[in-house]
Amino acid sequence: MSETQDYKYIGTRSIRPDGFEKVTGKANYGADLSLPGMIWGKMLRSPHAHAVIKRIDTSKAEALRGVMAITTFADFPSVSVEAIASGEGTVDSLDLARNIMANGKVLYHGHAILGIAATSEIIAEQALDLVEIDYELLPPVMDIRDAIAEGATVLHDDMFTEGLAEKPAVASNIASRADFKKGDIEAGFAAADVIVEREFYTPTVHQGYIEPHACVARYDEDGQSMIWCSTQGHFDVRASVAKLLSMSLNKIKVVASEIGGGFGGKTTVYCEPVALILSRKSGRPVKMVMNREEVFKASGPGSATRCKVKVGAKNDGTITAMQGELYYEAGAFKGSPARLGGMCIFTPYDVDNLQVACYDVVVNKPKVAAYRAPGAPQAAFAGEMVVSEIAEKLKKDPIDLRIQNAALEGTKTIYGPNLKSIGLVECLQAAKNSPHYQQALAEDQGRGVASGFWFNIGGQSSATINMNPDGTATIVEGSPDIGGSRASMQLMAAEELGIAAELIKPIIADTENIGYNQSTGGSRTTFATGMAVIHAAQDVVRQMKERAASLWNVTIDQVAWADGVAINSHGEERLSAAQICAGADRTGGPISGQGNINARGAGPSFAVHVCDVEVDTETGKVDVIRYTAVQDAGKAIHPSYVEGQYQGGAAQGIGWALNEEYVYGEDGLLQNPGFLDYRIPLASDLPMIDAIIVEVPNAFHPYGVRGVGESGIIPPLAATGYAVSDAIKAPITDLPCSPPNVFKAIQGR
Amino acid sequence: MSETQDYKYIGTRSIRPDGFEKVTGKANYGADLSLPGMIWGKMLRSPHAHAVIKRIDTSKAEALRGVMAITTFADFPSVSVEAIASGEGTVDSLDLARNIMANGKVLYHGHAILGIAATSEIIAEQALDLVEIDYELLPPVMDIRDAIAEGATVLHDDMFTEGLAEKPAVASNIASRADFKKGDIEAGFAAADVIVEREFYTPTVHQGYIEPHACVARYDEDGQSMIWCSTQGHFDVRASVAKLLSMSLNKIKVVASEIGGGFGGKTTVYCEPVALILSRKSGRPVKMVMNREEVFKASGPGSATRCKVKVGAKNDGTITAMQGELYYEAGAFKGSPARLGGMCIFTPYDVDNLQVACYDVVVNKPKVAAYRAPGAPQAAFAGEMVVSEIAEKLKKDPIDLRIQNAALEGTKTIYGPNLKSIGLVECLQAAKNSPHYQQALAEDQGRGVASGFWFNIGGQSSATINMNPDGTATIVEGSPDIGGSRASMQLMAAEELGIAAELIKPIIADTENIGYNQSTGGSRTTFATGMAVIHAAQDVVRQMKERAASLWNVTIDQVAWADGVAINSHGEERLSAAQICAGADRTGGPISGQGNINARGAGPSFAVHVCDVEVDTETGKVDVIRYTAVQDAGKAIHPSYVEGQYQGGAAQGIGWALNEEYVYGEDGLLQNPGFLDYRIPLASDLPMIDAIIVEVPNAFHPYGVRGVGESGIIPPLAATGYAVSDAIKAPITDLPCSPPNVFKAIQGR
Repeated sequence: MSETQDYKYIGTRSIRPDGFEKVTGKANYGADLSLPGMIWGKMLRSPHAHAVIKRIDTSKAEALRGVMAITTFADFPSVSVEAIASGEGTVDSLDLARNIMANGKVLYHGHAILGIAATSEIIAEQALDLVEIDYELLPPVMDIRDAIAEGATVLHDDMFTEGLAEKPAVASNIASRADFKKGDIEAGFAAADVIVEREFYTPTVHQGYIEPHACVARYDEDGQSMIWCSTQGHFDVRASVAKLLSMSLNKIKVVASEIGGGFGGKTTVYCEPVALILSRKSGRPVKMVMNREEVFKASGPGSATRCKVKVGAKNDGTITAMQGELYYEAGAFKGSPARLGGMCIFTPYDVDNLQVACYDVVVNKPKVAAYRAPGAPQAAFAGEMVVSEIAEKLKKDPIDLRIQNAALEGTKTIYGPNLKSIGLVECLQAAKNSPHYQQALAEDQGRGVASGFWFNIGGQSSATINMNPDGTATIVEGSPDIGGSRASMQLMAAEELGIAAELIKPIIADTENIGYNQSTGGSRTTFATGMAVIHAAQDVVRQMKERAASLWNVTIDQVAWADGVAINSHGEERLSAAQICAGADRTGGPISGQGNINARGAGPSFAVHVCDVEVDTETGKVDVIRYTAVQDAGKAIHPSYVEGQYQGGAAQGIGWALNEEYVYGEDGLLQNPGFLDYRIPLASDLPMIDAIIVEVPNAFHPYGVRGVGESGIIPPLAATGYAVSDAIKAPITDLPCSPPNVFKAIQGR
Repeated sequence: MSETQDYKYIGTRSIRPDGFEKVTGKANYGADLSLPGMIWGKMLRSPHAHAVIKRIDTSKAEALRGVMAITTFADFPSVSVEAIASGEGTVDSLDLARNIMANGKVLYHGHAILGIAATSEIIAEQALDLVEIDYELLPPVMDIRDAIAEGATVLHDDMFTEGLAEKPAVASNIASRADFKKGDIEAGFAAADVIVEREFYTPTVHQGYIEPHACVARYDEDGQSMIWCSTQGHFDVRASVAKLLSMSLNKIKVVASEIGGGFGGKTTVYCEPVALILSRKSGRPVKMVMNREEVFKASGPGSATRCKVKVGAKNDGTITAMQGELYYEAGAFKGSPARLGGMCIFTPYDVDNLQVACYDVVVNKPKVAAYRAPGAPQAAFAGEMVVSEIAEKLKKDPIDLRIQNAALEGTKTIYGPNLKSIGLVECLQAAKNSPHYQQALAEDQGRGVASGFWFNIGGQSSATINMNPDGTATIVEGSPDIGGSRASMQLMAAEELGIAAELIKPIIADTENIGYNQSTGGSRTTFATGMAVIHAAQDVVRQMKERAASLWNVTIDQVAWADGVAINSHGEERLSAAQICAGADRTGGPISGQGNINARGAGPSFAVHVCDVEVDTETGKVDVIRYTAVQDAGKAIHPSYVEGQYQGGAAQGIGWALNEEYVYGEDGLLQNPGFLDYRIPLASDLPMIDAIIVEVPNAFHPYGVRGVGESGIIPPLAATGYAVSDAIKAPITDLPCSPPNVFKAIQGR
């Protein structure tokens, strides 16, 4: 809300360190590296949604001039029967391996079967056409209802539902069930004057990052290897590849290219281990770049869900009970974020009686991946739609109702711990006070309000700051910059060191040049890597004070540090950082500082969105005419980037609400694997999204930072969906609110 | 001499970490990087040895299709009149700048005048041909005798001899004089029974590195830039380029490619700043690669010298006085290593009365660069030839005479300080005891013995060790590996950490990823960077002990570290490095250690060589038939590399003694700028060189390391030269001992 002026650099809108490179097209992304002797790898992908592979014959492909190597699932040593039996391998990576290359069975349209490397991309594609495969088709299971129905075709014979009181007798498509509970749900509903219960549907959606998955891998004769790729976490690419290929970590160098979007979708591996195997087999560097169709078909989208929510409240507005039954599609292999959805859905509310059951369901679709606040938007869509309906039923202002029932510091969550200091009420108040919320609506217009909660995480980060002899500095960190973290690291280091931000250059180092860093995700980077940078900067300041103390022949506690200058408390003497660095050779050598942490205390970020839409009742087309995103940043290090996160989350959430969906035929084949048919919002589709930064400091970060990257995508589904419902005076339960769906709802009212 | 077994990893002959890459041709050298949109730069070079540039017309070159940018000396802002006047620029870099591109006057054959970048190398060369230049020729000054003669043509009107009692009235070609003195030289000679005085000549020689100078530079719109180049010191390339182009250090990233030899010749810049200017002007990355002719004509060779030496001794073998007058060619700009020659020449001797005068003389040849123990081989050639002649005159064994007069711990040097612990006598004894020295000579064979001294240096280094979650590690350092330092860093880290060397990967990081490191030179790397690595490893061990202590709930002093395992002194508990690293997330995050130092206490390394030759008296051709190189390593971290240094130094010194020389015509033009006419020793020219490692520990290094890279090139000139003299029974004073020169000496005896 305010850009506090307590700091000199933090909170300023400094020039982006990577801006020029990106706008001039010089930044190098995953596909931009070429190495001498490099060849191309391509994946053969399943034309069927569900089938047993009876026979693979690669002999014609092998015979094609220019084909250098072919790889299949059999090349994963870590998941071989022998490896697992010997304890060297691990079943943990079995699903990962068989998602990367099918093991005897294809489980979705586009599922990779084998990889071929050839001297050109065209030859590699020609070789794919020469591979002969016999399939035995199986019925595709494309929807949660079908997947959990009695007698459903089961994807994995060996998968038995986990999380039940006792192990079930038969395999099923429900990978697991998780239950969360607080209070007495029956008593809660008994105390209610009004109850709303509805079932909702959200489709499979894609993160829609512009840059496809791309990598270049090189495997040398001595077993040293290098992978260059577009990823949110090159250290975790290293870990996955090491596990899959049974390599030690110091044999694999992973370099993160610039990244053209990830949003959670680039936290796992697809081509990377395949390219490395192909490089090992061919003795050549191998480049693999997915095309857009492959990205849609075979990278990890966000889960489709079917969620039932029931909420009860008293006439005075007190919510007495909230219950959810959440089914999430995992895709072909277990591991949807159902559990996370269950933990987030009711957390904006301080309600005594809560209950959620979460189901992880496999279907014949690509294995889902994280997508910004994974699992929360779908659950919040269901929960917030019902809360808004309760407000309407009680003739209460939807923000007032939320304030009345808002979670506060100390509120016990459904998943256990009490909330620490949070800014939900402040966000709700800011939304209510916004000019937007004061504005009246016209005919065929509607308004929706929704809130959202995301945990945020901390975790492991390493950072180094190297001072140059001219007093400039380099920050060496290992968190790929997907949302402006270079700028935030630069500002935090500037604040600590007391030197101008433009004198500090932030670098994303490869896995060899810096210590371990978890992937960029969970809104952890500005918080956790930021703390590592702060520690490194403090280490540098300590050393600079030591150097000054040694020159002045005083103790370090007699030296103060302010605005980049050491000050001798016993005299008038001053030495700037530049002076200390210029003379560092005479006081002990180069000055570098380190920060290595496993950061705890990530602060949850609550978001509250207000959406106005206008519906063309003759076509069902929805236009978002005004949109406000309010969110608690704790402390906005670089406000423009924070606003950008709010706006970006809102834009993606609006797309999810209005247009985006995977369209499958009866045959289980994806019918819209491209941006022409899978419609993400264009700039022309959206109004300027107003971003309001609330700052309720996180007590566990020196500057009060909370992560801001994820909560902003949670409210839009319900805010937009409820606005449509409000405009057309008919309930909305299924997304997207695309023209045909909305038109049908109008017809049905 | 011995490979002590006190250590587990140090002293072993481990597999070279960079071996596979290099032998399979996958290592990337200076010319091996290509960037998208890259163009080529070439230098226009002077066809004259000495001339005023009257006019440059680049209009035709500019008009050639494909020419993207042209640069001249005027593009160096730091040396502009305005910059110097304002204090922003500096006269310090004036000579560097005008050696890189001539400023109105060309001073040697091949002197660069301007740079042109074009879309192909051929177009760039065509463009060079289109540049029109009018020259006014000046007489070339090609020899020290001519340069210092009365009425000589003066290269620089504004250069007045420094180091004299008073500033001379007229400019001259003597840039400076330096004097060193100990005792009373007159009294010393008065006390002598025998005196030998001779004058010697050594020619201009080239280091003969196989890889030419090569770089790729990229200048971005926001002023960030990157230089990839073959260099011994990428941090010092950064410093030079920053100074020349008035840039701040954090705007320039320099990446050291693999290096195909440097030997001192890659410690300065030639193409690098030019490529960066051309990139800035063209908006494209620019590659520049010298051809062999350019390397010979315009990179920095070793100084030609004329040295007069006079030595007096008593009949009992006591040397009473040693005097030298050393003239060194600097090439076109001041800065020969004359002074270093003067400091080294007599340091192997504990003699009361010493005096040396050193002259730095400019001539119309390329500006010299460092060449392995810069300045010492030439001076030692003169000094050791005379000492050997003294021994002969006194009928003393030349090794015994040297032992009798050998410098010892405590000997006061001519340049001031007393020597610390040294291994000269041990080397002399080892040489004397060698099987080689026992072997009798046949007819037409001769033997020479010589010793050599080099200071070695320490200086600034930074290193980081990052532990991976599987217990493997990366050493991040910033010293280009020109002689096996990756292996020595790996072994020292293994010793400190107690984990196997192959689990540790050494990395040479770029200027952004690691703190400042001085160039690899002065035999500093294994000593100084090694200490930084040792400190980083000790920092890691401390942290691993802390982590173990926290898990065991004891204090760190209750935890011991042995063989890569933490041991609880109060119990039976043990945790390996791998276990601690695997659980590092639960004990505070990633583990990395740092070492930043300005290392003092580099230990001098003395070398003693024995050379046997056989001379074909009919042609003057000399064959080296046996050669032994003895040298004090302090402690040989990787004995194979140490032996390689001894052998490599000997091989280069033998080449210098026997065949290598720049051949200039009367016109000052270089007549042999290629390896066919400038003859370095081939494998078939040399016997296997026996290397004997003496280990007298350097008290100022934890393992006793002395640098070993340089002393080995000092004795060969005299050892070989004296062997020839011994074989032909005639004095040798001028190098090389090439067939025509030796034949002449045989004729003249």
